[in-house]
Amino acid sequence: MTITDGDPIAATAASPDYVQSLARGLSVIKAFDAEHPRRTLSEVARATDLTRATARRFLLTLVELGYVRTDGSQFWLTPRVLELGYSYLSSLTLPEVARPHLEALAKNVHESTSVSVLDGGDVVYVARVPVSRIMTVSITIGTRFPAHATSMGRVLLAGLSPAELDAYLATATLEPLTSRTLITADGLRAELDRIRRDGYCIVDQELEEGLRSLAAPIRDASGGVVAAVNISTQAARYSLDAVRSELVPAVIETAAAISADLARTQKH
Amino acid sequence: MTITDGDPIAATAASPDYVQSLARGLSVIKAFDAEHPRRTLSEVARATDLTRATARRFLLTLVELGYVRTDGSQFWLTPRVLELGYSYLSSLTLPEVARPHLEALAKNVHESTSVSVLDGGDVVYVARVPVSRIMTVSITIGTRFPAHATSMGRVLLAGLSPAELDAYLATATLEPLTSRTLITADGLRAELDRIRRDGYCIVDQELEEGLRSLAAPIRDASGGVVAAVNISTQAARYSLDAVRSELVPAVIETAAAISADLARTQKH
Repeated sequence: MTITDGDPIAATAASPDYVQSLARGLSVIKAFDAEHPRRTLSEVARATDLTRATARRFLLTLVELGYVRTDGSQFWLTPRVLELGYSYLSSLTLPEVARPHLEALAKNVHESTSVSVLDGGDVVYVARVPVSRIMTVSITIGTRFPAHATSMGRVLLAGLSPAELDAYLATATLEPLTSRTLITADGLRAELDRIRRDGYCIVDQELEEGLRSLAAPIRDASGGVVAAVNISTQAARYSLDAVRSELVPAVIETAAAISADLARTQKH
Repeated sequence: MTITDGDPIAATAASPDYVQSLARGLSVIKAFDAEHPRRTLSEVARATDLTRATARRFLLTLVELGYVRTDGSQFWLTPRVLELGYSYLSSLTLPEVARPHLEALAKNVHESTSVSVLDGGDVVYVARVPVSRIMTVSITIGTRFPAHATSMGRVLLAGLSPAELDAYLATATLEPLTSRTLITADGLRAELDRIRRDGYCIVDQELEEGLRSLAAPIRDASGGVVAAVNISTQAARYSLDAVRSELVPAVIETAAAISADLARTQKH
């Protein structure tokens, strides 16, 4: 038996191929986060919508596998879960190639810099160099934001083929995250045309009030957009004019340098 | 039903509570890495020791859940798997608190710096600031090394209670990773006594030929050792005398600064 064109490429929840236990187990891992680093069995059951008996079996299995530890009443994740996420990160060349460029950029402009890739309708951070300030944005590798409201997301959407963009727009909910968020398909299409022409994107307080960011595309050896690099800053620190004159050239130059290094890596 | 003292705190593989599907699904995620970012169904089946039919069900379920993508013949992980590892990282205050200190230290000594925690007999990297060089060590967050052969591992072992240390020594295999690796329990105990007295550890080419590293303990508000910070360098760049006179004071100072910030965070 091989996966051929005739086979389904996913097992939907209703399909006999779907392994419900795996889905439930992963949801138990995801029940822990910054707000809930330690949870009781009841809390995990509530968060995952599982019965206590079922949640207990998954937790005890995760304890046995070394992903969870318990003191008998509370449960928490162990560093072993990093192996799951890092199966992906270690398979990417991009974060490693981008890192020195992000560091140089962050140092140069005194603002946090990041690289993201597109995953469905979201951008996902795969590399980040934060700048230490009292007021920082709480973003780590793995953080997701809706693509339509972020500068990296729009750069990545601008790099989609017409068919891919149509598919995105057919399913995406262009939610207003602030009063300024672009929420119409036509408005977004016009903005993506502009990004393709100019080679960068500025998003001004559309993701969160006070937050301003700008991004440029990272391209692979064939010219396709594979990632985006950004600088995020605060409206109070850089005027839009200063963003355009000072930050835009810096982010474009960094994106070009990362693209060049990436092409070099891919040739080897 | 609650988890009480009378209940088992883990479901062993033979126990009726053990969810084998979860263990298998996680092994499928771990079948992908830097050497194998894309694999066919047959390759995944071989790597996980599952039948093709079983491996296929897990892969298709992971595709449905958005953790894996396929072109019909090959499979690869998506950025969504980062959510699993980052459930853990986002629950830790330590990497965020440590990061600016690691950056300052790396800049000061021109060497890569890291923070690790102990997980069983391994150290696991939870924060790292690499220095760009032609010859760098390929370590990312989530990387594991056996504690006995690393400077951070020994600092962490030195922070265990006598009972915990006995339990570690009863099960650990003190494998020789180079001709210099300390491999006797007595030798290791003597070294841990020295670390407790001096407050730092130097490991000279015991993990890998040419690799030298030194570490100091990060303590929580109650004085317990919760993590370790290190500087890694190469034997060719710093003599042991230079490591002692130049790097040891720097790593001790950084560990103290991180401990102080961590205690401040915990008080809030």
